[in-house]
Amino acid sequence: MSERLAIVGGDAAGMSAAASARRRDESLEIVAFERGRFTSYSACGIPYYLGGLIDDVADLVARTPEQHRANGIDVRTGTEVAGVDLDRRELSLAGGGTVPFDRLVLATGARATPPPVPGAEAVEPVRTLEEAERFRDALDGDHGAVVVGAGYIGLETAEALVRRGLRTALIDRAPQVFGALDADMAEHVQRAAEAVGIDVHTGVALEEVLLDAGGRPRGVRTDRGELPARHVVLATGVRPDVGLARAAGLPIGETGAIAVDDAQRCGDGVWAAGDCVESRHRVLERPVNVQLGTHANKQGRIAGVNAAGGDLRFPGVVGTAISRICEREVARTGLTEREAREAGFEAVAETVESGTRANYFPGRGDVHVKLVVEEATGRLLGAQIVGAETAGKRIDVLALAVWHGMAVDELQWVDLSYAPPMSGVLDPALVAARAAVRRLGR
Amino acid sequence: MSERLAIVGGDAAGMSAAASARRRDESLEIVAFERGRFTSYSACGIPYYLGGLIDDVADLVARTPEQHRANGIDVRTGTEVAGVDLDRRELSLAGGGTVPFDRLVLATGARATPPPVPGAEAVEPVRTLEEAERFRDALDGDHGAVVVGAGYIGLETAEALVRRGLRTALIDRAPQVFGALDADMAEHVQRAAEAVGIDVHTGVALEEVLLDAGGRPRGVRTDRGELPARHVVLATGVRPDVGLARAAGLPIGETGAIAVDDAQRCGDGVWAAGDCVESRHRVLERPVNVQLGTHANKQGRIAGVNAAGGDLRFPGVVGTAISRICEREVARTGLTEREAREAGFEAVAETVESGTRANYFPGRGDVHVKLVVEEATGRLLGAQIVGAETAGKRIDVLALAVWHGMAVDELQWVDLSYAPPMSGVLDPALVAARAAVRRLGR
Repeated sequence: MSERLAIVGGDAAGMSAAASARRRDESLEIVAFERGRFTSYSACGIPYYLGGLIDDVADLVARTPEQHRANGIDVRTGTEVAGVDLDRRELSLAGGGTVPFDRLVLATGARATPPPVPGAEAVEPVRTLEEAERFRDALDGDHGAVVVGAGYIGLETAEALVRRGLRTALIDRAPQVFGALDADMAEHVQRAAEAVGIDVHTGVALEEVLLDAGGRPRGVRTDRGELPARHVVLATGVRPDVGLARAAGLPIGETGAIAVDDAQRCGDGVWAAGDCVESRHRVLERPVNVQLGTHANKQGRIAGVNAAGGDLRFPGVVGTAISRICEREVARTGLTEREAREAGFEAVAETVESGTRANYFPGRGDVHVKLVVEEATGRLLGAQIVGAETAGKRIDVLALAVWHGMAVDELQWVDLSYAPPMSGVLDPALVAARAAVRRLGR
Repeated sequence: MSERLAIVGGDAAGMSAAASARRRDESLEIVAFERGRFTSYSACGIPYYLGGLIDDVADLVARTPEQHRANGIDVRTGTEVAGVDLDRRELSLAGGGTVPFDRLVLATGARATPPPVPGAEAVEPVRTLEEAERFRDALDGDHGAVVVGAGYIGLETAEALVRRGLRTALIDRAPQVFGALDADMAEHVQRAAEAVGIDVHTGVALEEVLLDAGGRPRGVRTDRGELPARHVVLATGVRPDVGLARAAGLPIGETGAIAVDDAQRCGDGVWAAGDCVESRHRVLERPVNVQLGTHANKQGRIAGVNAAGGDLRFPGVVGTAISRICEREVARTGLTEREAREAGFEAVAETVESGTRANYFPGRGDVHVKLVVEEATGRLLGAQIVGAETAGKRIDVLALAVWHGMAVDELQWVDLSYAPPMSGVLDPALVAARAAVRRLGR
């Protein structure tokens, strides 16, 4: 008799695991449980849907439940798993009943964590496609919006709301927007946000979500006064959803996410992947919890292949991320200067301004590159880029340099591509590496 | 008394050497000789100037002779060096007279090599800014043009001529355009060239440049018939200009370029850099002659610093190149499939089609990625990309992977950036690496 692989969670990690297991072992019975009605969707695309760049929420679905079923995966949407019994090898469903399994992949994702202020519980999250649809349908251009939290999601969402004609304020308790960048680089982002009309308030703490008589948001109260708004979005962060894993006795790491080994294994016949797990950070050399679709996809594949008898290993992350915010491309990899110092590195930083094309070439845009370098060795610890279109993806070569622990002394000579429509004679990464070498005094 | 550094050649390599030596040793006397009237110019920009994207040829000059002089470099334009006497430590000038030196940097660049057919000698090259100015001024939209040689320069030039309204034919004796790519990838380039109106003829050999009574080109005769044209461009390749070096007894390598060590040194107190020298190819593990501004800039810096008492080393090249041709971005690094086989590698190739944005994201363009992989080890030997805007610079991360001798087994997991406006959840490089791993059967 064939064994049964159960998968909890039907988004990137879970369905990547399902598809990979299916490909590797045709005899395996595979059943996947998803609370919502969509599978394999791009949560990263939600701000663009909200902003109207994408019309139909269904466009964000890479593979429907029907398509997965046609691939031999028993997908059960609208089905919440309430408990995992590892000894009896069975799942209990929220709607009642149990489902036995032999092997298990947990891909339970993350949950929004509303800030602990009065009224926050009345604000609907905008994390799933269902929530995004409801939120967009309810948008009312005659009223203002407040977005709380100026990270990626907060900025992308504020931009979307401005695009839809809403007067939009963005507040964050930190003294800068975009905490994933150092303050000097984040300034470029704040200016871009303000340029498209977002009313940015940093260093402002949310104290209450103000509700009307019907219990619906009518604004926010901050330590600097009140902001009226019909629409309130709380983008103050998400936490790995580890309730099932914790209750089942699976290991939870210091980050609050499920602790897995590099095979994505977290227990006997149990694997986990995606937003709910820890990943090893190759520079910090410790586990981190990074919630990104690209990691979810890779880890899901590894979990699925291994659950089907394979042996793939996840080699870790270096903290790479990218976003397009208010016409600017914003990217980072490795550690910021602040993160490097916090982690105990003796680091120096160097920032250069270069361009997306040769100086003389029409349509040249700016590329600001900041490198963070270990002082004694010259090792590249991290990089940040803010710039015009095509600036952002230039982070990838720096991500690979960080991945390999490369020193700027070598990086400055690497054979990167050059043609006038795409860069100066030295790519911005090389310009930055050369400047960093000088900064190191060698 | 201060020593004198003489530099022969005032373009990227030579003036980069001059400026770097100046920075390192303020006491050094530096004199640079340039045949033409421009210094530090972008020859790579010439096709864009011809096409009218750039109005003024002076825009292609990064630094004028006056600017170099203000920096303490004695630049002598319009001055050709006719001989180097290493024993007497003096240069002889074509216009007469000698100039003593203590140290020497040769940056003599490359020369067009007209094909050995009748009439070719009557065709003016379009290599320098002076030549480009003359050529553009003489362009006559009422007549056609023929470009011979469908490499980078030939394609870029043919595109420029079409942009200026000339009926333009492009011929090459090879069965494909763009020999720097494998034939399957070059097909995309040929289609793009034809789409903008270039009349492409491959497998056609030039037999004669036909001249009118005044000795000016009136067309070409090929092994497939005649093509009339008022303008004929011979883009059939360039050779390193090593006449001075050879006559001086400096070592010339098998590639026909000056043989230098990794300090760019080729003799006692003599360094060389740029189009005229050999570089070590890190995959082939042998010297190659690659003529690119980016190498010239780097090697010039190394030569200049070392000539001023420093110790920098050039770590070699991996054959990276990029171009924008007829709205397509075209890039390569490492070895093509053909080059890998010719070099004796047991190689397999895999090609994928991916996109510049997520599937659902507006404005998504195509990205074709071909990887060439060593069969036994999975080591990435080379990569090629053809695609829409933003496709090309994605070669850089693959260039760095080739640089490090990385295997696709590891590459497929690298933490590259992802956001819907810039890629699918897996970057095209990762999609290609994953496909290559499958192709290897593991």
